[in-house]
Amino acid sequence: MKKLFLIATLGMLCCLHSANAAAPVAPAPNGLTLPEGYKDWPVISSTHRLDNQTLRVIVGNKTAVEAARTGKTNPWPEGTVFAKMAWKETVHPAWEKALVPGEFIQVEIMVKDSGKYKETGGWGFARWKGLTLKPYGADASFAQECFACHQPVKDKDYVFTRPHQLP
Amino acid sequence: MKKLFLIATLGMLCCLHSANAAAPVAPAPNGLTLPEGYKDWPVISSTHRLDNQTLRVIVGNKTAVEAARTGKTNPWPEGTVFAKMAWKETVHPAWEKALVPGEFIQVEIMVKDSGKYKETGGWGFARWKGLTLKPYGADASFAQECFACHQPVKDKDYVFTRPHQLP
Repeated sequence: MKKLFLIATLGMLCCLHSANAAAPVAPAPNGLTLPEGYKDWPVISSTHRLDNQTLRVIVGNKTAVEAARTGKTNPWPEGTVFAKMAWKETVHPAWEKALVPGEFIQVEIMVKDSGKYKETGGWGFARWKGLTLKPYGADASFAQECFACHQPVKDKDYVFTRPHQLP
Repeated sequence: MKKLFLIATLGMLCCLHSANAAAPVAPAPNGLTLPEGYKDWPVISSTHRLDNQTLRVIVGNKTAVEAARTGKTNPWPEGTVFAKMAWKETVHPAWEKALVPGEFIQVEIMVKDSGKYKETGGWGFARWKGLTLKPYGADASFAQECFACHQPVKDKDYVFTRPHQLP
């Protein structure tokens, strides 16, 4: 009996483990999927948002990075993809005057496709929340909320990110 | 005469251009060189230093990124290389509660080689200042200054960077 229980437990643990390892990320309600390998993309900029106490890092795909480094960012080229990761700010345990990323909040993407996303300035928007990467929005209309918030940067192709200066 | 002047001017411009394109970065006084392609490395973390008003992004080579993502960071493995880029903080022109990177200040590296850098906790340190990437330090002893500043994180293998949480 004990042996059976052990086998059953091990079996469950294996299932849990493989479910976790292969956990697919659900697409956003507008069909956008989280790009493969975005964590390995080069950095384009970073931000500290004082209004919601978050640190953010913006990375980009090859098209985005090339545009950023050659200053061809208004408009950004078709095929540009940004991923913006956000963390709650926290004080560095060994340097009290440094704020560092704490809890992971979300990852957001912007995808430039002027034809497909005509209604939202040529950009597809999506957001995944928390470590479980839960897609944001009840239905596809959530993108209007994103687009509304990006109006202050209409003259910068609706993009808040200003690529950081590099040598 | 006019033609000669034009040719001479064009010649000078060409030289200036190619000098700029190929501008080699001088090694640090301890012989460390700025790693090729560091701008394309994945992000490991970011910081906002309130004591000197800088935003920083820390990227790492393959060894560093693998260690960061698997939690094998104390000690960091031999061959780990970090590059930390720093910018003066500035207010986002369209979002006054966001601080974003302004003027590029410097890039610093840490290279883990316990044998070679025994005197400084197993780490080789170097810094290049400004857009001209001027090596920091009058002679190789500058690394003692870096090492002294890293004492508060002696129990973290002398590394301030805590890898950000990722889904």
